[in-house]
Amino acid sequence: VSAPGSGRLVVFDAFGTLFDPSSLVERLRVRFGEDGLAIGATWRATQLRYTWLRTLMDAYEPFDVVTRDALAYAVRSHGQGSTDGELDELARGYSELEAYTEVPEVLGTLVDDSVTLAILSNGTSAMLGGLAERAGIAARFAVILSVDSVRRYKPDPAVYRLATDHFGVAAADVGFVSGNAWDCSGARRFGFDVTWIARSDGPFDELGEQPDHVGRDLRVLLDPSA
Amino acid sequence: VSAPGSGRLVVFDAFGTLFDPSSLVERLRVRFGEDGLAIGATWRATQLRYTWLRTLMDAYEPFDVVTRDALAYAVRSHGQGSTDGELDELARGYSELEAYTEVPEVLGTLVDDSVTLAILSNGTSAMLGGLAERAGIAARFAVILSVDSVRRYKPDPAVYRLATDHFGVAAADVGFVSGNAWDCSGARRFGFDVTWIARSDGPFDELGEQPDHVGRDLRVLLDPSA
Repeated sequence: VSAPGSGRLVVFDAFGTLFDPSSLVERLRVRFGEDGLAIGATWRATQLRYTWLRTLMDAYEPFDVVTRDALAYAVRSHGQGSTDGELDELARGYSELEAYTEVPEVLGTLVDDSVTLAILSNGTSAMLGGLAERAGIAARFAVILSVDSVRRYKPDPAVYRLATDHFGVAAADVGFVSGNAWDCSGARRFGFDVTWIARSDGPFDELGEQPDHVGRDLRVLLDPSA
Repeated sequence: VSAPGSGRLVVFDAFGTLFDPSSLVERLRVRFGEDGLAIGATWRATQLRYTWLRTLMDAYEPFDVVTRDALAYAVRSHGQGSTDGELDELARGYSELEAYTEVPEVLGTLVDDSVTLAILSNGTSAMLGGLAERAGIAARFAVILSVDSVRRYKPDPAVYRLATDHFGVAAADVGFVSGNAWDCSGARRFGFDVTWIARSDGPFDELGEQPDHVGRDLRVLLDPSA
């Protein structure tokens, strides 16, 4: 079995895969005290929920808008209040997420091995470009593909098709890497060769698909036995 | 302003609107102890999540299958184990949910006032028919419409269109009633006249739509000032 990163093309999800949404919890704790952790979890769950619902309703709004709306819902659902200015500032934090610690080194090794890297994400082009620049990894990617251009969110197949269209390859030739089990399920159904980065202890989703490879962090992409 | 129930046609969502998913918590507590409440919440959230994801992935499975898959995920995500037989039996509980207490009387009053009633739900026809029979309200409905026939889940507009197609009316002529804020948002976007039954204290969703009417339970449908 070849290493999951040994193909010529590896496409990464961004949030929960390269960049850590939980790195915002400290800011939420400063503002909301002991509710900060729970608000952070509701925020992330609601943000995803709204991407799915808006796609089904055919009511696309960009990811920064959805992220801000989800934060407003999360704060109110925990009985807290906030001003528009506070919500704006906290939501901008999603453009300032930290990369997971192993990310720069693993990407560098893959590029040194002549692997072509890309990002395929729900984020806007501006958010994703900024995050990659901040983390010092922007030059590693041949392209950053945003759902902006199709105005639908994952796991709609139109999103995964952005990668096969851009590179002119078959789905099976794409190594796809995501920390989100549902994203892996959608990508697997589309036909990608999928690596699930199981950063927490939760189970994989029950959506009729299984990942081709599993690791605890991106270093699995360098492991020929994985 | 006319009462939300005074139109000729009122279409009800089922789960969380007529029938109470939380009525299964006691069974979960018997099986899983103090984790029962949390497993119940994760089960319901995952069940909905899977309906949205499967619709986006174009991977429809009937609601009883999705419900059982979601329970398996919920149990494992809380670190618990269970046999296939236990999961089957617990999941069948979704076909044995209790109606909220005010439901039979409100539906009876509406029918006495010559309002035409229907159900439009994610549930399978078999599940919905059984639930209505158990609650003694089956005869109140002119029709029970299931997503089964379009193999997509709410809030896909194809689902709401089942109601306008069946009755041959415009969307604006349908009074739609749901306890699920996201369902209200999708129905409002489709053009229904929407009543949100806010059975808990959570905020309405931030999806760019607002309900036309709001009440704490179905009795709001009898209130001409609502």
